[in-house]
Amino acid sequence: MSSEIGKNLKISVFGQSHGRAIGVVMDGLPAGIAIDEEELYKFMSRRKPGTSRLSTQRREEDRPVFLAGLMDGVTAGSPLCAVIENTDVRSGDYAGLADLPRPSHADFTARMRYGEAVDMRGSGHFSGRLTAPLCIAGGIARQILGQRGVYVGAHLLSVENESDEPFPLFPTPELFAAVADRSLPVIDEAAGARMAAAIEAARAEADSVGGVIECAAVGLPAGLGSPMFDGVENRLAAALFGVPAVKGVEFGAGFAAAGMRGSRHNDPFVIRDGQVRTSKNDAGGLIGGITTGMPLVARCAMKPTPSIGRKQQTVSLSQMAPAELEIKGRHDPCVAVRAVPVIEAVTAFTILDILMEGNENGIT
Amino acid sequence: MSSEIGKNLKISVFGQSHGRAIGVVMDGLPAGIAIDEEELYKFMSRRKPGTSRLSTQRREEDRPVFLAGLMDGVTAGSPLCAVIENTDVRSGDYAGLADLPRPSHADFTARMRYGEAVDMRGSGHFSGRLTAPLCIAGGIARQILGQRGVYVGAHLLSVENESDEPFPLFPTPELFAAVADRSLPVIDEAAGARMAAAIEAARAEADSVGGVIECAAVGLPAGLGSPMFDGVENRLAAALFGVPAVKGVEFGAGFAAAGMRGSRHNDPFVIRDGQVRTSKNDAGGLIGGITTGMPLVARCAMKPTPSIGRKQQTVSLSQMAPAELEIKGRHDPCVAVRAVPVIEAVTAFTILDILMEGNENGIT
Amino acid sequence: MSSEIGKNLKISVFGQSHGRAIGVVMDGLPAGIAIDEEELYKFMSRRKPGTSRLSTQRREEDRPVFLAGLMDGVTAGSPLCAVIENTDVRSGDYAGLADLPRPSHADFTARMRYGEAVDMRGSGHFSGRLTAPLCIAGGIARQILGQRGVYVGAHLLSVENESDEPFPLFPTPELFAAVADRSLPVIDEAAGARMAAAIEAARAEADSVGGVIECAAVGLPAGLGSPMFDGVENRLAAALFGVPAVKGVEFGAGFAAAGMRGSRHNDPFVIRDGQVRTSKNDAGGLIGGITTGMPLVARCAMKPTPSIGRKQQTVSLSQMAPAELEIKGRHDPCVAVRAVPVIEAVTAFTILDILMEGNENGIT
Amino acid sequence: MSSEIGKNLKISVFGQSHGRAIGVVMDGLPAGIAIDEEELYKFMSRRKPGTSRLSTQRREEDRPVFLAGLMDGVTAGSPLCAVIENTDVRSGDYAGLADLPRPSHADFTARMRYGEAVDMRGSGHFSGRLTAPLCIAGGIARQILGQRGVYVGAHLLSVENESDEPFPLFPTPELFAAVADRSLPVIDEAAGARMAAAIEAARAEADSVGGVIECAAVGLPAGLGSPMFDGVENRLAAALFGVPAVKGVEFGAGFAAAGMRGSRHNDPFVIRDGQVRTSKNDAGGLIGGITTGMPLVARCAMKPTPSIGRKQQTVSLSQMAPAELEIKGRHDPCVAVRAVPVIEAVTAFTILDILMEGNENGIT
Repeated sequence: MSSEIGKNLKISVFGQSHGRAIGVVMDGLPAGIAIDEEELYKFMSRRKPGTSRLSTQRREEDRPVFLAGLMDGVTAGSPLCAVIENTDVRSGDYAGLADLPRPSHADFTARMRYGEAVDMRGSGHFSGRLTAPLCIAGGIARQILGQRGVYVGAHLLSVENESDEPFPLFPTPELFAAVADRSLPVIDEAAGARMAAAIEAARAEADSVGGVIECAAVGLPAGLGSPMFDGVENRLAAALFGVPAVKGVEFGAGFAAAGMRGSRHNDPFVIRDGQVRTSKNDAGGLIGGITTGMPLVARCAMKPTPSIGRKQQTVSLSQMAPAELEIKGRHDPCVAVRAVPVIEAVTAFTILDILMEGNENGIT
Repeated sequence: MSSEIGKNLKISVFGQSHGRAIGVVMDGLPAGIAIDEEELYKFMSRRKPGTSRLSTQRREEDRPVFLAGLMDGVTAGSPLCAVIENTDVRSGDYAGLADLPRPSHADFTARMRYGEAVDMRGSGHFSGRLTAPLCIAGGIARQILGQRGVYVGAHLLSVENESDEPFPLFPTPELFAAVADRSLPVIDEAAGARMAAAIEAARAEADSVGGVIECAAVGLPAGLGSPMFDGVENRLAAALFGVPAVKGVEFGAGFAAAGMRGSRHNDPFVIRDGQVRTSKNDAGGLIGGITTGMPLVARCAMKPTPSIGRKQQTVSLSQMAPAELEIKGRHDPCVAVRAVPVIEAVTAFTILDILMEGNENGIT
Repeated sequence: MSSEIGKNLKISVFGQSHGRAIGVVMDGLPAGIAIDEEELYKFMSRRKPGTSRLSTQRREEDRPVFLAGLMDGVTAGSPLCAVIENTDVRSGDYAGLADLPRPSHADFTARMRYGEAVDMRGSGHFSGRLTAPLCIAGGIARQILGQRGVYVGAHLLSVENESDEPFPLFPTPELFAAVADRSLPVIDEAAGARMAAAIEAARAEADSVGGVIECAAVGLPAGLGSPMFDGVENRLAAALFGVPAVKGVEFGAGFAAAGMRGSRHNDPFVIRDGQVRTSKNDAGGLIGGITTGMPLVARCAMKPTPSIGRKQQTVSLSQMAPAELEIKGRHDPCVAVRAVPVIEAVTAFTILDILMEGNENGIT
Repeated sequence: MSSEIGKNLKISVFGQSHGRAIGVVMDGLPAGIAIDEEELYKFMSRRKPGTSRLSTQRREEDRPVFLAGLMDGVTAGSPLCAVIENTDVRSGDYAGLADLPRPSHADFTARMRYGEAVDMRGSGHFSGRLTAPLCIAGGIARQILGQRGVYVGAHLLSVENESDEPFPLFPTPELFAAVADRSLPVIDEAAGARMAAAIEAARAEADSVGGVIECAAVGLPAGLGSPMFDGVENRLAAALFGVPAVKGVEFGAGFAAAGMRGSRHNDPFVIRDGQVRTSKNDAGGLIGGITTGMPLVARCAMKPTPSIGRKQQTVSLSQMAPAELEIKGRHDPCVAVRAVPVIEAVTAFTILDILMEGNENGIT
C-alpha cells in the first residue's frame, strides 16, 4: 500500500474512517510561508457533509489540528502533520458487511488484498472520509499557489444527464470563487438547479448518480513538465485516480478529440498580449506533457455512489453463495458534489510539486 | 525530464528521432526467462510504419539489438538494454520548423522547456518513433506475462465517428491474437472497413483523424494493486499518458459511468466456477485501485495526428508575428492505428511491474 | 527536505523538538500483525533520556499514541501513524542561539538551507528527539522481524578510547537481549564501567565524547539485496546516516579491510549444518550488496555531542563578527549511548523494507 | 535489481563483463551543455587497466559511443545513452568458476540471488568493468560542475599500511589535476612510491591489498542538502557503496570522531573573506546532512581484490563439499588504484543530482 504521492512535495495520507484520527504529512513544503488557517478551514468546509440535503447527514467537524511543521501560522520547512479526530462514528451501521461485499465497493477487493484481518467498517482506509486530509494538503497548496499567481478551480460539469456550461477559454480566479460559493459548485445556476433535482430524484428512489468534474488551473508558465512519463498529464492522472470514484481522466478535448479531425482539433498559435497563445484550447494547456501557458483543463468522471439503499445482489463470502444486500447508513447520493474541492485539492498539490521541480536548466 | 517509469521493473527510454539509435533499458527483469526474439519482432512489426496506405510511408527496420541483459536468448537478471539504429532519416523535411511551431505539436512546449539548444528535427525525443522502445519493453513483458497466464490485448474501438464493437465480457487470448493479425486491429472487420475508409478520406483531404483504443488484460488475480495513490489505475494512467497523443484514459464504464445511476452501474457479485465474479464489468476489473479478478479494461483517447498537410495558422517565434505553415513530410493520418500495440506494450510492462510488487502480506 | 525513507515500507518522520507532537507514518506494513505495545514501549525506553547520569536529565514520557493503522493491537494494512506529544519543553534554554550558531551543530546549516523563518529552538526538526519516532518504526519492525526469525541487536563498541569486545561470529538473540538490559548496552560489563567513567569524566569537564556502535542482524537468508545501487549496504547506509551524529558507516571489516591483504581478508567458504557459510566474517554478511547468510554486521561512528558547556568560538550572524558562546541546557555527554537502540531501529525497518522487496524471480 | 540511482539526474547502468556492450543512461541532464569528449576520454583513461604494472594487463579501449542525448557535442535535454563495446573477452579464464564460488566474491551471493540461470563469467553485472559507465556519467557530471565552479578530486590516501598525506583544509582544482596526472594518484609522490612497492610486493606473492580513497568537492554553496534521510551524506553513501569493494564510507573526521571529545571535534566558526567558515573541518563540510560551505570530504574503505592467485578454500556447490580453488586470469592487485576516478565520478554525479534539487524555497 502506498497512500503517498509526490516527488518534491510528498503527501502521505493516513487514517481509517473508524480509527482515532485521520491526517496527512506534507514533506517538502517551503519554509516561512504564512498559511491562513481560516481560509483553509473555509476551503475544507466545501467538502464537509451535512451541509445540504444533497449530501450525507453525517456531521464532521473536520477542523485540522497541526501537530508539526506549522509554527505560529508559518511553515517551518520541516514536515507538516495535520490531523482530524474522528468523532461521529456509528460503526453499527456497517455491521455484517464483512461477509456480504457491497457491489462496486472496495469491500471485496480489500478483502482479497489484505485478508480478513482488515477492519473495513465504514470502508476503513478506502473511505471517502480520507479525502479530508487530501483537502488539508490541497488547501495549503492552493494558498501557496495563490501567492504565486496560480489559481485552481473546479465545477460540477454534469450530473447524470444534466450539464453545466464548460469553463470559458480563460477562467478567472473570480469565477472560481463565485462557483465555490454556490451550494452546488456550478457556473450556470439554472443548470445547478436541474442537477440538484436529478440528485434529489435519485435519492428519493434510494439510488445514486454519477457526474463529471471539470478542473482548471490558470497562471501556469509555459514549459512546465517533462516529456514521456514525467509529464503534467502523467502526474496529474496518477494523483486524480487516487480520489475515490474517479473512473476516467481527460485533458482538453479528451475523449472528444478522438472523434475530431486534426484540422479541427489543432489549436492555432496566435500572439496575444505579446505572448504566444492559442486561439482555442483543445489541448487543455498541455502538449507533449508540457504546459503551453494556456489554462490547464482536466476532467474527471465520477461513478455513482456505490452505496445505495436498494436491495442488491451479492454473495456471501463465508458460504460462497448468492445473497441479497440492503445497505443502511447515510450516504451521499452523488459523490461528485463533495468531490469538487477534492479534485481541486489534488490538482493543487500536484501542480505545486511540479512547480517545485528542480529545473535542470536552472542550475547554470 | 524523466523518460522512465516503474517501481520494481524500471523502463528507461532514450533516443531522438534523428540521433544514432533509440532504445530502452529494463532494470528488474527476472533472471532465467527465455525470450522468443522472433515473437518479439513480430509484435514490434505491428507498430511498424509503411505496411499499409493507412500509415506513414517511412521504412524502419526496427529490429532490436540486445546490448546487455540477454544471453543466448535468456534474461540475465541484470539490466537489459536493447537498441534500434536510426537509418532512414530525412531531416530536410523538418527544416525551418524551428521558428514556426506546428499547432498542437510539442515543438513549442519543447522550446519553452529546453530552450533553443534542443534539436527538434523530427520532434526529437517527443517523436512517435520513441514508441518503438516502448514496444520492445512491452513485447518482452507480454511474453513473461503469457508464461504466467496473463494476456494483454487491444483493438481500435473507434476512429472519428466509426466504431468497432467493444470487447466481450470475457475476452480470450485467441480473440487478442485474431485482432492482432488483421491489417486494422479490430474485432468486427466490417467496422474496420468503415474505419479504413474514414482514415483514407481524411488523408485524401490532407487531414487526420483521432480514435479510441480499448485495451484488456485477462488472467489477473483479484487483490492486485493498492489503495489511493498506488492503485492499478494510478499506475496505468501514469504510464499510458506517456504514449504520445493520449488525451484521456478511462477504466470500465469510465466517462459513461458519470451518466449512470448506481443501480445500473453497480456490478452484482455472482459465483462463477467457484469464484466470486461480477455479472457485468462496468468497474473494468478495478475497484478501489485493486483488481477484482474480472478482466481489466482501459480505454485511451488518441487525438488526431497534429501534423497535417493543410495550411495552418501559427506564429514566427523569432518575429513574434502571425505566420502560415504548411507541413511537408510523411505522417500517419491516424496515429491511433499504430498506437494499438503501443498501448498493449505499456499496459503489459506496467502490469508486470505491479505483479512483481513485494506483497507485504507475503513476507510471513 | 525529505524525512522519509523506504521503498516497500515507507517511514515518514515529522515533528520539531518544540512543536505540539512528533511522530511517524509507516506506509506498507503488512495487515493482520499483532504488535505488543508493552514490548514496543520497553524498546523505546532504551533511548529515553533521564534514566542515568550518563544522559540528559530531561524527562520525556515518549509513550506513542496510535492515531491510525493499528486496531485492537493489530496492524490494519493501511498506513500506521503514531505520535508522541511534546510536554517537557524549556525553550528558554535556547534563547539567543539564533544569532550565534553552535559549532558543529545544525543551527548554521539549517539557517543557510531554510532561512531565518525556521524556528530552531531545540534544533527543531534536527533535534535528537526526532529519533523517538524512528524507534517507534524500528520497534514495530523488530517485532515483525522477530516473528520471522530475524533478530537485530547493537552494542556500544567504543567510547572515546575505551572498547567493548566485538560481537562474536554468531551473535544470538539472547546476547542481544542481555546487552539491551544493561544500563550501558555493552557485552563486557567491565568495559562498560570504563566507558561510563570516560563519559563521566567528559561531563565533569563540561565536555562530551564520541563512540562507535556495532549492530548485527541474524537470521537473514542468503540472496537478499541487489547489486550496484540497490544493495543492502546502499540502503542501510542511506538510512543510518539519517541518525544524527553518524559520521561513518562500515560493514564487516570496514576500514580495517583497507589495511589487509586479500589472503587475510577473504572469507573461506565452508559447509556448516548443511549450509554454505564462511569460517570468518570480514564481509559482514554482505558481498556485492547481497546477503551471504552470515550475520550482517555494521558499525556507525558517532561524533561527540556538539553541545558542550565549555566556552566556544563562533560568529554572530547578524554582525558577521567573531563571538563567544556558552551553551546552557541539558545535553547528553555521549549521544552514542542513547543512539544504540536508534541504530537498531533504523537497521530493523530497513531490513524489513528489503525483505518485503518484490522478488522478480518469485513472480512465476 | 536496480542499477540505477538519482532523483533529478538518474543514472542507469547496464552490461555484463562478457556481453556485447556496457553502458549508461543519464536521464535529467540539462539541455544545451557542451561536453568535451576528449576531456571525458582523458578522465576515463584514469581507470583504464593495462597502463601500469600495478593494474591488470587486460586492454580495453573504453571509448564511449553516444547513441542518444548528445548532438554535435551538446546535450539535447533528452536522456543520454553512451555505450562501450566489449572487445577483449577471454571467458575461458572463468570456466569452472560456476561451481566453486570465489571467496569474498559475488559469485556465491549472485547465485543465491538469481539462481543458476545467471552467467557469471567475469562476474557478469558485478564486474569491476561496470565502473566504466559510472565514469562516463561522472565524467560528464564533472564537466558540468566545473562549468559552475564546483570541482571534485580524489587521491589514494592509503594502501595496506602506507599512507599519503590527507587533503589540505582547502584543496584546489590545481591539486586535483596534479594528483590525477600521476601514475599513482597521490599528493606525496614519496608516499606513492611506498604504496607502489606495497602493491608490487603483494602481487609478487600472488596476493592483493586494500586501500582508502579520499575524495573532496570544493565550490559547493552552504545550505545544500536536506535533513534526516535526504542529506548529502545519505545520498553520497548510497551511491558510493555502489562501487565494488567499498566496505566503509565516512565524512570529515569519520570514525576518528568517535575517539574525540567534543571540545576537540567541534569546528569553531570564523569569518573568512566575508563568509562564515570554520577554522578546521572535522565535519567534512557537512552538518545535519547539509553543506557548510567548507570543502566536502569523504573517505571510502576499499577491500583488497578478492581474486588472488593463491590457493583458497571454498566449497563445491554441486557437491556441497569442501574444495580448493586457484583463480587464474588477470586481476588488479589493488582495486583501490583504479577506483580513484570511479569514486570521483560517483561523487560528481551525486552532487550534480543534489544541486539540481528543486529548492522549495526557490519557488517564491
